[in-house]
Parts: sequence; C-alpha cells; structure tokens
Amino acid sequence: MIRMDLRERSYQIYVENGGLDRVGAVASRLNWMGHVAVITDANVAALYAERVMQSLEDNAFSASLHIIPAGEGSKACRVIDYLCNELAKAGVDRHGAIVALGGGVVGDLTGFVASIYYRGVPFMQVPTTATAQIDSSVGGKTAVNIAAGKNLVGTFYQPQAVVMDPVVLSTLPTRVLAEGLAEAVKHAAIKDASMLPALTQLGDELGIGFSLQTYEQLPELIAKNVSIKARIVEADEHETKGLRALLNFGHTIGHGIEAARPYGEILHGEAVALGMRAALILSQKYSTLTKRDAEKINKALDALGLPAKLPASVSPETVMGKLAKDKKFVHGEIRFVLLRAAGDAFVSSEVSLDAIKQVVLELQ
Amino acid sequence: MIRMDLRERSYQIYVENGGLDRVGAVASRLNWMGHVAVITDANVAALYAERVMQSLEDNAFSASLHIIPAGEGSKACRVIDYLCNELAKAGVDRHGAIVALGGGVVGDLTGFVASIYYRGVPFMQVPTTATAQIDSSVGGKTAVNIAAGKNLVGTFYQPQAVVMDPVVLSTLPTRVLAEGLAEAVKHAAIKDASMLPALTQLGDELGIGFSLQTYEQLPELIAKNVSIKARIVEADEHETKGLRALLNFGHTIGHGIEAARPYGEILHGEAVALGMRAALILSQKYSTLTKRDAEKINKALDALGLPAKLPASVSPETVMGKLAKDKKFVHGEIRFVLLRAAGDAFVSSEVSLDAIKQVVLELQ
Repeated sequence: MIRMDLRERSYQIYVENGGLDRVGAVASRLNWMGHVAVITDANVAALYAERVMQSLEDNAFSASLHIIPAGEGSKACRVIDYLCNELAKAGVDRHGAIVALGGGVVGDLTGFVASIYYRGVPFMQVPTTATAQIDSSVGGKTAVNIAAGKNLVGTFYQPQAVVMDPVVLSTLPTRVLAEGLAEAVKHAAIKDASMLPALTQLGDELGIGFSLQTYEQLPELIAKNVSIKARIVEADEHETKGLRALLNFGHTIGHGIEAARPYGEILHGEAVALGMRAALILSQKYSTLTKRDAEKINKALDALGLPAKLPASVSPETVMGKLAKDKKFVHGEIRFVLLRAAGDAFVSSEVSLDAIKQVVLELQ
Repeated sequence: MIRMDLRERSYQIYVENGGLDRVGAVASRLNWMGHVAVITDANVAALYAERVMQSLEDNAFSASLHIIPAGEGSKACRVIDYLCNELAKAGVDRHGAIVALGGGVVGDLTGFVASIYYRGVPFMQVPTTATAQIDSSVGGKTAVNIAAGKNLVGTFYQPQAVVMDPVVLSTLPTRVLAEGLAEAVKHAAIKDASMLPALTQLGDELGIGFSLQTYEQLPELIAKNVSIKARIVEADEHETKGLRALLNFGHTIGHGIEAARPYGEILHGEAVALGMRAALILSQKYSTLTKRDAEKINKALDALGLPAKLPASVSPETVMGKLAKDKKFVHGEIRFVLLRAAGDAFVSSEVSLDAIKQVVLELQ
C-alpha cells in the first residue's frame, strides 16, 4: 500500500493480487454511503465487471454498471454528457460515488466526470492496464479530447483510492503490456536507475510469455513505479513547479510520433520508447549522460520489445509538423526533459528545434 | 472594490460606473500575458463587446471575441466542446486567459470552460445583468445543464477578478432588473435587514423608470450585496459547511416553481420571490420570525413588482412534483432555509413535505 500525501486530498494506493475483489471493502473503508456507479468499457466489462459489482454488493452497496465503447473515441464531450445523464438516472446524487474500472481512457474520462458531476463526487480508480497502473491512474490528471487536440480539456482531481490488481495484466496482449512498461523504464530513467536490471529481465521473460515468475515480480515493480510517481505528484500536484514536467521524459518527441499516424497504430508506450531513445541521444549531447547509462536504458527498452526505429510509415517531416503543434512547446520555447545520468532528470531550455529534427532523423 | 479572501484564490471585485472600459487595465494588473478570449452572447455582444475589446487592445492584449447564442440552451456540453475548440483555434494556450462578458448563462458557462481548458486557465467575470452582478458572478460556481437537470455539471473555480459596471443595468428591461434585485432582497433577508428600506425605495423608483437617482444608488447597493455574498463564500467556499446553503433561501420552492413552466416563462428571480414569500410563512411557523419582519421583506418584493401569487398557469401539484426531483432534497431529508428574524437565517430539518405543500397552496 502506497500513500499519496496531498493534505486533505491524500489517499491510499493498493497494489495487491486479487485487488479487484476488494473494491467494495475499500469503498466501505472510505465510508461511501450513496449509490455507486461503476464506469468501464465493453472489453473490460466482459472480463472483470462482475467481480467488481459482486464485491460492491457484498459490502451492501447499491451499485450500477455503465459501459462505454472501448477506445480513445470515448474520451469526448458527448460521452461526458451521456455518462452524467446515466449517473443521474441511476440515482447518483452528491452522496454517490464512482468507480473507474479500466485503462487510461476509462480512467481519464471517469475522473473528469467525477470532478464535474455535482461539482465533484468521490471516485476510485481501478486501473486494468499496465499503462494505467504504472502511470495514468496515479496523480489526479483527468482529460477528454477535443477536435483541436488530445487531452486539451480536463481537471486536476484526485481519487479517494486507487486499487490495482496486477493479476489482470496477464490478460493483456504482450504488445500492450510492453507499451505500459515503457512508462516504467521512464520512471527508472528519471528517478531510479536501480529498476533497470529488473525491467530488462522482465522483458526477457515476457518474450517467452507471461509466467508465474512474472506474476511474482509485478506487484513489487508496480508499487515501485507508483511510489516514484506519487513522490513527484506530491511535490508538484498542479504541474506549476516544473517537477511534474520530468514525467514528460520521452513524451515530447513521443507525442509527435504517436500523432504522425492514425490513433492506435503506434501505441503510446511505443512512441514514448522512441522519444526516450531520442532524448537519450540529446542528453549525451546537451548534458552529462554517459553512453554507458544510455545503453542501460536502451537495453531495457530492447528487452521489452519496444521499437528502436521509426516505422516505415512515419516520416520525420510529419513528426516535426506534429511537434510544432504540441502544447508543451510553450511560446516557442522548448522545455525538453534531459538526463544528467540514469535516474537524474531535469528540464532544459537548450534543446533547439533543429537539434530535435536531427535526432528524429537518426530514428529512421 | 471588494476583496474576496480565499487564500491563494483571492481576488478583487470592482464595482464602478464605466467599469467596462477598464477590463483591459484590470487584465494588465493581473499580469495576463497570452491571448485573451472574450466569450459573450449575441445580445450582449451588440451592446458592449466593442468597448471591452477596445479596452483590451488599448492595453496591448491580443484578443478575440467568441459569441454564443443568447439563452439557457447554450449552457450545454456541446457548447463547451465548441468553445474549447474555438479557444484553441484563436491561440489560447496555458498562458492565455478568458473574459466572461454577459449574464448568468455566459458566466456559468465561461467559468466552466476556464476551469477545464488546459485543466484551468485564468478568467475574469464581467457580469452585465442584475442577477449576475448581485449574485451569480461572485463565488466561483460554474455550471452547465444536462438533460437530467439544470446545473448538474460544473466546478468550483474562482475568477481572478470580477468587473461590474452598474451603468449597463440601465439597458435591461425593468422586469429583468427586478428579478435580479430579488437576490438582493434575499441577501437582505438572510444577512442585512438594513438594506430593505433602500430596496423598497429603489423598487418604487423603478416603477416610474430607470432614473439618474437609480444610477447613483446602484453601485453602493451592488457593492453591499457583493460583500454579503463574498463573506458567505469565504466561510464555505465549496458548500461543505452548510453556510453557503443559506444562499438557497427562497430557492427550494423557487426552483420548483421555475421548473413548473417552460424555461424562461417565469424568471428565476420571480420564482425565488415566490419561494421567499413561502419561506417567510414557514419561518413564522417553524421559527421565530415575526409577522412584522416578514412584512418588511414582502414589502420590498412588492415594491420591485415581484409576484405575490403563483401564475394561473402553474398548479401547486406540478410544483410539488418538480420539488421531489430537486437535488437539494438530500436522501429524503429536506434542508430548508428559514429566518429567525429579518437578517438572520439558518438551515432547518424540521420542514416537512406536507408543510411545503400547504404553503405552496397558499401561494395560489
């Protein structure tokens, strides 16, 4: 169990095999009283909704299940409208609460709904993908997309608890699990290089399939990652102090790569892996990162089967075009996350657009 | 100038004849740097947009104007989606800011947009109706409607400044001005009975049209009301301590009356006036309000031409049906605001649904 310490918005993050069956008990511990709405997507519903609903019923909650289509398309204003009406129909009032059961889309969307419905009702994150467990379910960023850009609309809104069941990751395709672990490599790169051997080993094992050994390693690995993220969020909850920006390591170029193709063709973690590889080159050029440290990080990415080269379908020109629209390119000044060493990141203003272009070309 | 003291979310509320022309100067004082988007409705745009845009340009701001259709129908999720895309196109990024120029609809909607665009950008309220100046622009409640109910979605999000120009009220039809002043009577009833003679006198004067004398009285009257609301909001920003609930005086039954007819047929302030008259009867029955104090308040409502009886088109049964759906009827327990005396309000749990029904019948 990891504590997120944000004063009156503090909460516990539970990482336990079998955690799905304890959602109701956690809701009881939070003293939830009113109706509980569980929001999930069609894929996750088929696998896990029954257990979560059972757990809530076992703890005497009145609960309802609300299913949205799987995929990024659901992170939209019209779905917000739809869900809020569903909640009202189900009887969620200001004493009600919401459970987000699913991956990043469900978590981002449900967190946003929880933050605006009745001007905010309590909610719990129950992330079911590696990306969501390692990264997106922790920290209180909620988001929806608009035509003008991804995640341009959202709130900072903390859950009252996060319940992670690492066992559910075994149902993920290896490619999806690996893309989630890209964020773990990111955490290692910016804060804790000691995780790199374990990630490399895990990658090697995953290459031959999800094993009993993977099961055993995952809870601790996830807990470590959650701790890293929690400490950063605690220090800079609303991304105003530049610390939280370190979590964007690999993401600046990564976003450009991800956006270069129709959504979902290149997975977020795969694009971030490429972005990190580029940032490693820039960190050697513009900071003190050694070749040896860069190789340790690249090795972990390799072991996880994450890409080392741009797909043939992506031209560096397209990536640069997308980058120019990135909301992180503030007022023309590029704030780029570099490493001084493995485990030691900082935000640099030294990296020019030309330097980025150069390194994107090197990814070809 | 009134200060709203909410620690790091504190701000100034300017009440000055000619305030519209000082929007740009206030934005400068706030150190706004990026693009400024002004959101208004078609009616207000025709009257005041040019002056506000000029004031921003005079202060060297890059600014754009975004016009939504007038009316409650604009307080909807699809308009949020539309506006956020407009802001992106206009070049508002996390360094940009927003001005809400208009009445309650524009203020509620724009505040909500400001609270979620880039997870929150600075904004300024420039209210142009009596209701918005006396009440809705102060306090940080933002809202949109969904099919399941009015204001069911929103945030608590404080502006960085509120600029009120009482002169603009002279363009309002007398009926609309009077409904706004119903909220002033409410403030008098719950916090400051000494305002009642001035409100009664103002009502008498308005009966013969908006005069120079009205102009002279309005800034002070508005400032007094803003102070009352500000002190209540300071004590209970997020409506968690029961104090802010006092502002619902007259609103429980009022909402039921307003909802009994198609939106806009009975104005909000008219419905609240009827709700207050009912609450005055209940306050004599369930608390210590004297007949004399009740009459002082009713007299102010009378002078402002606010209704004393339910319109013939509204049946008490319809009102009761709407009341049963009110979000303030928490878990079946009715929290009803009563007066101990003029200027002294409290939340009672003693008022039964039957007692409310009785008093609604008396409004016939």
